[in-house]
Amino acid sequence: MATLEGIDHVGIAVADLAAAVEAYTRLCGGGPVHRSVIAADGVEVVIFEAGAQRIELLGARRADSAISRFLVRRGGGLHHVAYRVSDVQAALDHYSWMGLRLIDTRPRPGAEGRLVAFLHPGAAEGVLSELCQLTSGGVSP
Amino acid sequence: MATLEGIDHVGIAVADLAAAVEAYTRLCGGGPVHRSVIAADGVEVVIFEAGAQRIELLGARRADSAISRFLVRRGGGLHHVAYRVSDVQAALDHYSWMGLRLIDTRPRPGAEGRLVAFLHPGAAEGVLSELCQLTSGGVSP
Repeated sequence: MATLEGIDHVGIAVADLAAAVEAYTRLCGGGPVHRSVIAADGVEVVIFEAGAQRIELLGARRADSAISRFLVRRGGGLHHVAYRVSDVQAALDHYSWMGLRLIDTRPRPGAEGRLVAFLHPGAAEGVLSELCQLTSGGVSP
Repeated sequence: MATLEGIDHVGIAVADLAAAVEAYTRLCGGGPVHRSVIAADGVEVVIFEAGAQRIELLGARRADSAISRFLVRRGGGLHHVAYRVSDVQAALDHYSWMGLRLIDTRPRPGAEGRLVAFLHPGAAEGVLSELCQLTSGGVSP
């Protein structure tokens, strides 16, 4: 039985990361808490805190990245939602057993020590959905 | 100074509300906690819990509703994100003073006793963003 323990973050694809960081600094009342480049995915991630949840701004670093394709197709905006679970692998196994479509069948390392995995948008009414587990190496809010 | 106290919910526009309720019942490991029709907006809302946050499924009840237009334009998916604040009116006043574009300049009643107001997508990199204040009449998770 998989239980979603809460929303961890929303991911927002942006065409102009510098402008987006400025806008979300105004909106959040403070600057970002984390910034990193995930070279393998061709994405730059800037994270803001909203209480115990986060806002992930996603900028493209390569024209062939998933974020670039999303920007071309949809012009930016809400890209995915991530839910906290206590055990990503157990949740994946459960969803798989229920017949839900997965992108990842095993968790992989995410930002700030999290273990993450993506469900296929077809499992969640067209919404790209991430599962996300805090680990002892990660930052627990 | 406006501070976002957390993500309250994500709103997801769906073409087939019954199918979406079935999908999110599987995803959340349990059925919805609230269902209502907002006649003025031509929308039917079904709410699931994910820990202390919520998932709002939004179905259209009229062809001229904002959700219908969104479904035609984008084919469904993530529609808005709502942030908790302690005082919606104070946050609106602050954002207005900072020059952010607003949809609502005053809070209005939302689902389950919340006070809500929308910022213009132009204030948040194309993301329709809602501010949301729990009131004593509402259900505090």
